[in-house]
Amino acid sequence: MAKVVCFGEVMLRLQPYHYERFVQAENVQFTFGGAEANVAVSLANFGVDVSYVTKLPSHMIGQAAINSLRRYGVDTGKIVRGGNRVGIYFNEKGASQRPSICTYDRAHSAISEAKKEDFDWESIFSGAEWFHFTGITPALSENVLEICREACQVAKKKGIKISCDVNYRSKLWTKEAAREAMTELSEYIDLILINEEDAKTVFGIQADKTDVHSGKLNKEGYEEVAKKLMEQFRFSEVAITLRESKSASDNDWSGLLYDGKECLFSKVYPVHIVDRIGGGDSFAAGLIYSFLKGDDSRKALEFAVAASALKHSIEGDYNMVTVPEVEKLAGGDSSGRVQR
Amino acid sequence: MAKVVCFGEVMLRLQPYHYERFVQAENVQFTFGGAEANVAVSLANFGVDVSYVTKLPSHMIGQAAINSLRRYGVDTGKIVRGGNRVGIYFNEKGASQRPSICTYDRAHSAISEAKKEDFDWESIFSGAEWFHFTGITPALSENVLEICREACQVAKKKGIKISCDVNYRSKLWTKEAAREAMTELSEYIDLILINEEDAKTVFGIQADKTDVHSGKLNKEGYEEVAKKLMEQFRFSEVAITLRESKSASDNDWSGLLYDGKECLFSKVYPVHIVDRIGGGDSFAAGLIYSFLKGDDSRKALEFAVAASALKHSIEGDYNMVTVPEVEKLAGGDSSGRVQR
Amino acid sequence: MAKVVCFGEVMLRLQPYHYERFVQAENVQFTFGGAEANVAVSLANFGVDVSYVTKLPSHMIGQAAINSLRRYGVDTGKIVRGGNRVGIYFNEKGASQRPSICTYDRAHSAISEAKKEDFDWESIFSGAEWFHFTGITPALSENVLEICREACQVAKKKGIKISCDVNYRSKLWTKEAAREAMTELSEYIDLILINEEDAKTVFGIQADKTDVHSGKLNKEGYEEVAKKLMEQFRFSEVAITLRESKSASDNDWSGLLYDGKECLFSKVYPVHIVDRIGGGDSFAAGLIYSFLKGDDSRKALEFAVAASALKHSIEGDYNMVTVPEVEKLAGGDSSGRVQR
Amino acid sequence: MAKVVCFGEVMLRLQPYHYERFVQAENVQFTFGGAEANVAVSLANFGVDVSYVTKLPSHMIGQAAINSLRRYGVDTGKIVRGGNRVGIYFNEKGASQRPSICTYDRAHSAISEAKKEDFDWESIFSGAEWFHFTGITPALSENVLEICREACQVAKKKGIKISCDVNYRSKLWTKEAAREAMTELSEYIDLILINEEDAKTVFGIQADKTDVHSGKLNKEGYEEVAKKLMEQFRFSEVAITLRESKSASDNDWSGLLYDGKECLFSKVYPVHIVDRIGGGDSFAAGLIYSFLKGDDSRKALEFAVAASALKHSIEGDYNMVTVPEVEKLAGGDSSGRVQR
Amino acid sequence: MAKVVCFGEVMLRLQPYHYERFVQAENVQFTFGGAEANVAVSLANFGVDVSYVTKLPSHMIGQAAINSLRRYGVDTGKIVRGGNRVGIYFNEKGASQRPSICTYDRAHSAISEAKKEDFDWESIFSGAEWFHFTGITPALSENVLEICREACQVAKKKGIKISCDVNYRSKLWTKEAAREAMTELSEYIDLILINEEDAKTVFGIQADKTDVHSGKLNKEGYEEVAKKLMEQFRFSEVAITLRESKSASDNDWSGLLYDGKECLFSKVYPVHIVDRIGGGDSFAAGLIYSFLKGDDSRKALEFAVAASALKHSIEGDYNMVTVPEVEKLAGGDSSGRVQR
Amino acid sequence: MAKVVCFGEVMLRLQPYHYERFVQAENVQFTFGGAEANVAVSLANFGVDVSYVTKLPSHMIGQAAINSLRRYGVDTGKIVRGGNRVGIYFNEKGASQRPSICTYDRAHSAISEAKKEDFDWESIFSGAEWFHFTGITPALSENVLEICREACQVAKKKGIKISCDVNYRSKLWTKEAAREAMTELSEYIDLILINEEDAKTVFGIQADKTDVHSGKLNKEGYEEVAKKLMEQFRFSEVAITLRESKSASDNDWSGLLYDGKECLFSKVYPVHIVDRIGGGDSFAAGLIYSFLKGDDSRKALEFAVAASALKHSIEGDYNMVTVPEVEKLAGGDSSGRVQR
Repeated sequence: MAKVVCFGEVMLRLQPYHYERFVQAENVQFTFGGAEANVAVSLANFGVDVSYVTKLPSHMIGQAAINSLRRYGVDTGKIVRGGNRVGIYFNEKGASQRPSICTYDRAHSAISEAKKEDFDWESIFSGAEWFHFTGITPALSENVLEICREACQVAKKKGIKISCDVNYRSKLWTKEAAREAMTELSEYIDLILINEEDAKTVFGIQADKTDVHSGKLNKEGYEEVAKKLMEQFRFSEVAITLRESKSASDNDWSGLLYDGKECLFSKVYPVHIVDRIGGGDSFAAGLIYSFLKGDDSRKALEFAVAASALKHSIEGDYNMVTVPEVEKLAGGDSSGRVQR
Repeated sequence: MAKVVCFGEVMLRLQPYHYERFVQAENVQFTFGGAEANVAVSLANFGVDVSYVTKLPSHMIGQAAINSLRRYGVDTGKIVRGGNRVGIYFNEKGASQRPSICTYDRAHSAISEAKKEDFDWESIFSGAEWFHFTGITPALSENVLEICREACQVAKKKGIKISCDVNYRSKLWTKEAAREAMTELSEYIDLILINEEDAKTVFGIQADKTDVHSGKLNKEGYEEVAKKLMEQFRFSEVAITLRESKSASDNDWSGLLYDGKECLFSKVYPVHIVDRIGGGDSFAAGLIYSFLKGDDSRKALEFAVAASALKHSIEGDYNMVTVPEVEKLAGGDSSGRVQR
Repeated sequence: MAKVVCFGEVMLRLQPYHYERFVQAENVQFTFGGAEANVAVSLANFGVDVSYVTKLPSHMIGQAAINSLRRYGVDTGKIVRGGNRVGIYFNEKGASQRPSICTYDRAHSAISEAKKEDFDWESIFSGAEWFHFTGITPALSENVLEICREACQVAKKKGIKISCDVNYRSKLWTKEAAREAMTELSEYIDLILINEEDAKTVFGIQADKTDVHSGKLNKEGYEEVAKKLMEQFRFSEVAITLRESKSASDNDWSGLLYDGKECLFSKVYPVHIVDRIGGGDSFAAGLIYSFLKGDDSRKALEFAVAASALKHSIEGDYNMVTVPEVEKLAGGDSSGRVQR
Repeated sequence: MAKVVCFGEVMLRLQPYHYERFVQAENVQFTFGGAEANVAVSLANFGVDVSYVTKLPSHMIGQAAINSLRRYGVDTGKIVRGGNRVGIYFNEKGASQRPSICTYDRAHSAISEAKKEDFDWESIFSGAEWFHFTGITPALSENVLEICREACQVAKKKGIKISCDVNYRSKLWTKEAAREAMTELSEYIDLILINEEDAKTVFGIQADKTDVHSGKLNKEGYEEVAKKLMEQFRFSEVAITLRESKSASDNDWSGLLYDGKECLFSKVYPVHIVDRIGGGDSFAAGLIYSFLKGDDSRKALEFAVAASALKHSIEGDYNMVTVPEVEKLAGGDSSGRVQR
Repeated sequence: MAKVVCFGEVMLRLQPYHYERFVQAENVQFTFGGAEANVAVSLANFGVDVSYVTKLPSHMIGQAAINSLRRYGVDTGKIVRGGNRVGIYFNEKGASQRPSICTYDRAHSAISEAKKEDFDWESIFSGAEWFHFTGITPALSENVLEICREACQVAKKKGIKISCDVNYRSKLWTKEAAREAMTELSEYIDLILINEEDAKTVFGIQADKTDVHSGKLNKEGYEEVAKKLMEQFRFSEVAITLRESKSASDNDWSGLLYDGKECLFSKVYPVHIVDRIGGGDSFAAGLIYSFLKGDDSRKALEFAVAASALKHSIEGDYNMVTVPEVEKLAGGDSSGRVQR
Repeated sequence: MAKVVCFGEVMLRLQPYHYERFVQAENVQFTFGGAEANVAVSLANFGVDVSYVTKLPSHMIGQAAINSLRRYGVDTGKIVRGGNRVGIYFNEKGASQRPSICTYDRAHSAISEAKKEDFDWESIFSGAEWFHFTGITPALSENVLEICREACQVAKKKGIKISCDVNYRSKLWTKEAAREAMTELSEYIDLILINEEDAKTVFGIQADKTDVHSGKLNKEGYEEVAKKLMEQFRFSEVAITLRESKSASDNDWSGLLYDGKECLFSKVYPVHIVDRIGGGDSFAAGLIYSFLKGDDSRKALEFAVAASALKHSIEGDYNMVTVPEVEKLAGGDSSGRVQR
């Protein structure tokens, strides 16, 4: 019986080695990832019982996707097999002034064409305490939006805590569609994870004078956004990751957590980037782990930020770090000295 | 001005290294291929002016596909840019008793969703002497079938020789659809390439007592098929590749050419396989090259079979051999002695 | 609840790429394997619920070993964490006249230093139908021999079928120690897997005139060995794999199964070798799968031999093949033709 | 008809992976590069019709060099085949305080032994608007100096704009030889690219108090050099790249352009280096592209500096960036945020 | 006749590529290293005649260890063959806030089980001028401690200078054991290399207010430690490396040398880390080289610090730099400009 | 003091991975080889003291060449440093009907431009018992021919046994030049290694009706050639390797040795080829080793043929096999069974 259930897509991730671009590449890394899958693996690496729910074709690429989750201890017994495609994303890693480029090839994936009947949420949620999904999942198709809605309803009924990372993807749906769907789903969400841009795009909530391209933080703006979100919806917590992007190689990374009482800002980590894909997902996993454990907001925020700072040093989508490693960093040891 | 025009898809080919299966792979070869693209590259490697016609997305994976063709000298100036996907195939290389497995993920590719207006065949064929396509292309979609028909009509009108490799793909269309389309298109085809199985499936033409899984050849059966095909259509030549599959590692490889007069069987090459994908395509390229040069049927057949025997020793879809290399083998030197 | 429980070591396997020797290697494959682990993974790939029992250190290499099993669906929940070392084996792949060389570095591994208290067999066997181990495991240490004995006793008591692959390893124990231990354990064993050499070394049972280095089979000798074994012990079946080693690249592979009634010899597969490590283990897995399914001796033998013939085409210790793939080969299709 | 013609060598570039040194390497990257070839590929990546002129052996390594240019869309139809060697350079990538080391093995290359008759400049320049070469090319041999002279004369006669990057190489010729040749060729050059050191070495033009090893810029000194060059020759523009080398891993990068009216200094980019070989060449390509398009000096300079700042994040000699990517950076977005 | 003799272990070093962790790795670098071996190779790269003394198994992994030393010119003729294991260490490379992790698997290595009779120090030291070992070696086992003692006695008797890098390893012995052994061995040691932490742990010598995790230096504290060490023992020099660890990617690196007269602090190098394992060993090698050459303390210190700063840019344990490279950096050129 | 001295070139060997051709390769193996270097390394692997004499540049590629020899235990202390180039050969590995292609880029290498004064043969041969070179070395240049002559004279004077492998290379010199030089040098040679083709080309000695391309042996012809050579010169032994090239993947391999009394033919090994470059060199090394040990002709021949059969299973030029491995095969065990 899994304590946490994550629902979403898992995609094949193809990436050239080193800093090669696809036009010059002859071989690529063959790994898997996806917003909710990243949360699931990160939780499994923290020792949490977690089950991943999706739909994957029965062919060898679908099997490889399942294996990539099982390898790190995620329960895959609830994954439905069928459909034709595993969604794919091509990731070209940037450096210095050159940004990373993600090109998605996910239309018509098995999960995007899944049907409501594919998932029996009463059974899936048996014994669960937490349900996590992101705004990417309802954006996949009308069907999947409906499946999300049903999952939320069943989870709510069973008293399962629900977290959602808004993650607006303009290539998947329009602002209007996102706003309508996410507004409705927000009724069910306890912990919302969002960034400033999406707060504006999806919920029309805006703070003053922040430019995501300037690389400078506007703390007050972020606080304002968090509070407005809390006013508008019945979230128990609003969490925001704060990325100051100095270049594709160096970012400052921190987070905010507002629990209705205090708006907490975490320690800031200057990260030298190995792979920043999945940074936000590892933050979500950190919060879920810490809240499940019963930590208070400050501890949860610092755990989540430390976990996700470490993610930036990890190859691939999945955050391959353990609880003691995160706690060591959250506890203040960021010297990076060799551990023997 | 290209002498030869090839029309079809070019796909991203993903394959694990060595004999790994996808479920255990962490990195894959990132190359390109496709039936007609393979013919085009092979012809370019023979020094022929050849132009490839397809539709590819404007994103980096589409560009990588174009680069893979340009690299070997194929003219890509007539490729239309647009659409969303590059078709993909996942190839798992077999050995000994374990067969190779090709899993296709090609639905919704840019070319399969191309429109008739995308291609101006009058202009494309300007200066051309030969047009090549395969039965895979009209199978991609109704639209592409119509585009093929138009291309054939324009080519015929301009006196361009047309070759077609039947290549029936049961995952793309039904037998009935294939029979209807290929029967109609056969009106335009001069040189047809086919195997015994497809002759039966697509044209209902059958020889006695040959079992494709037995690994034994039935020469008379093949001859019978060639002759029946010639009676039924107005082909100038019928060519058949003959593969005796002893295992995934070792095959005997030869070919048949019937020009309405004599039914020629080529020398048989026992091939120790490096990569057999594209074997038939390299045979087609060999025939086209040799006929363009003005060779007689015997010479053309032996050139094509030698070229395609060599293909089995080449990594990837494309046949990376030169005319002198093929002529050396066709001339009888199969000792494989080091050339210094 | 696992249907099958396997007990033994899982080792880190280090192997240079291609046909490199260690003295010239700069990078190596980092995978895992071990006689019983190979059986467990093979069964998991056949869709069987299988649990692996061993002891592994809590450090990152121990974790990597667990991940390698989980990836393919083996239940690792009963693995005890502790101790210092993961056993290692260095494998240098041979070719042609040059044999592969396995150098073991397994002394002091966590499992070899495990204690009886580490394993609660009553609980481990809850719901199980089959228990598999090999003669390597009791050879690891006195402690592990005792653990094996206890496991067999509990399994017997619960009516669980027990299989054992004798696998004599002269580097781990003397002939005398092996004979004493295996004779005792044979009391509990239902299905014994053995080769001619070990029958002589371990049980003193010998057939006439067979020379394992000649590359020629002595069918009668093998039958004689099987019958003598059956007379001496209360095995329900004796199975022997028959390898005719023509070179490190090419073997003929078949098997024998004697169920007390008939001595069956399987079809012989000429295998062109990708990796022959784990050949015998994949044969054991094939028998277990087939017997669990209720197949008769002939079907079980042919399934097991086909499965293990395929293993020779697979990279690494683990047999990465599915039931339909094995059934296709056992059904007679050994042509290795590409599957699209 | 190519708009731009580049003339020079193309060399095989061998480089170990990661930060390995050759004495510890067992495998190397096999790519191609060379000052003018880098300009040609960069222009092709900008969508410019560009033709590369050189001489390459007819063997497989010569062919591989051609393929490397074709792949990115450079016209190779004017490359002369013959001679024995492809020049080679061995590049060992530095980091931190350890500099990269380029060891050249280019003597006796096909182009260095080319003859005047090999190139028909009237025909080569048919339809061209721009001719680019560097000071490395006339340094290859007396013959090639003469070929350069002829090329310049024909280009001048045809009203083709000529750019030259001085690039003094002390291993190829003496200061005196360089001064004599470059002074003569400067008669034909419109746009000269140079650095401070070469201005002194080749033209005896010197500014005060700049130490190339100090890592500090002397803006006035650079301006002085540019102006003196303009006084001495009839250049239409003088361009200088300004590299402040803090370490092998981090540089500040900017440029200067003097058009006889104003001496412009560009924005400064702090670059975290992936590969800095070809930085100057990508700057030249940026200027040529921008001037061809009709941009003014400020825009051309900023485009060229942004293009070449991006080059530092690209693997290999060739600058694999597109016009929109450069314009995005030149437009001020240097945050390196992931593009989805 | 070797001028320098080093005695200790040489271990197999396994490390995933890039920044992968072992739990996600499928292939690893296969190299060798170890504290004294690193010193030996570094000296050999400086052109010094150096002999390595250890014990290694006669199997292929032992041979590979020997080859790794021979490759760089270390004399391996005095290495004893025998025993079962080559010690192994698993190194996971950290980045940014994530530390590198070294997991040792060295118990029961051939050298740790070596016997006194294995080494004839009279013969080994014939012609030698310098003997180097580290505190890791006597920690391997009681036997090896005794061997070290004997080596020191023979060296002393022969007037050979002795250097020792304290290198306390808490996984190998207790503080008490280390203190007793190192105090005794210090009688023989001329040049001691140590860090502040070990001075306290091993010799109970402590300075005020320095926190090794703060990343800040306490110069006075270090000086105090050096002086106290000199008072307590009869060292001719005390050397301390000073690492300010800002993160796993960036450190400041410098050193201190106290010769009883002056306490010298070197230039500080900000190093961007490729691989920091072996940093201290390369510092030791720099001092030994410089002292052997007859340099004064200032010159020796600056040479050693420059050499070890460069080590941080080198892949693997061994410092692959030459004397001119070190002298160039020590001489002030840290710009990292490409050398052609 | 080396027992054996080998003199010749050592070249950088660049080869794509798997069966890739250079036109499609992006990375290549970076190893070293050369006829006499291969003999030297093979002897060192047999435990013989062997010194390699050549000239190599002082740059990093020259150093890498030296390291490649030192790694396997060859004494490199007599190698002269200087000159500009390390000779290079590009090797493309063939398979099945496609031959391997070696493209040499060795002109102007340091050794080919060496001067007589570079080598002091009196000192080089101090303590030596055997001198080996091949017909490639005198072909490098007039200078090197003269150096060979001097080496032979000094060796003869000192009573050192001389072996030479004729190895005619038509790209290096004409038949006439080869005949003149080799005829003269043959005065000094004791053991000559040659093939039938070279016997005809170089010495004009011919047997009847053998076609090197037929793949069939003509035993009598070979015997005739051996005897005629012995009549014409004062060789103590004539050795011929017999390769029946069935394809680039499979050869039959054996040898002949004529000692003036009996003409011995060895056992024939059917080899499945990993890398056949250096096959002849490993045969030479086998003979030298065996004769040095005092074996008789039969034993020496069988040892040499077994050693060189094994070479065909080894990656790279150098034969990485030990004496016990060769003796095991020569003793009749060619089953290739795994050695544990």
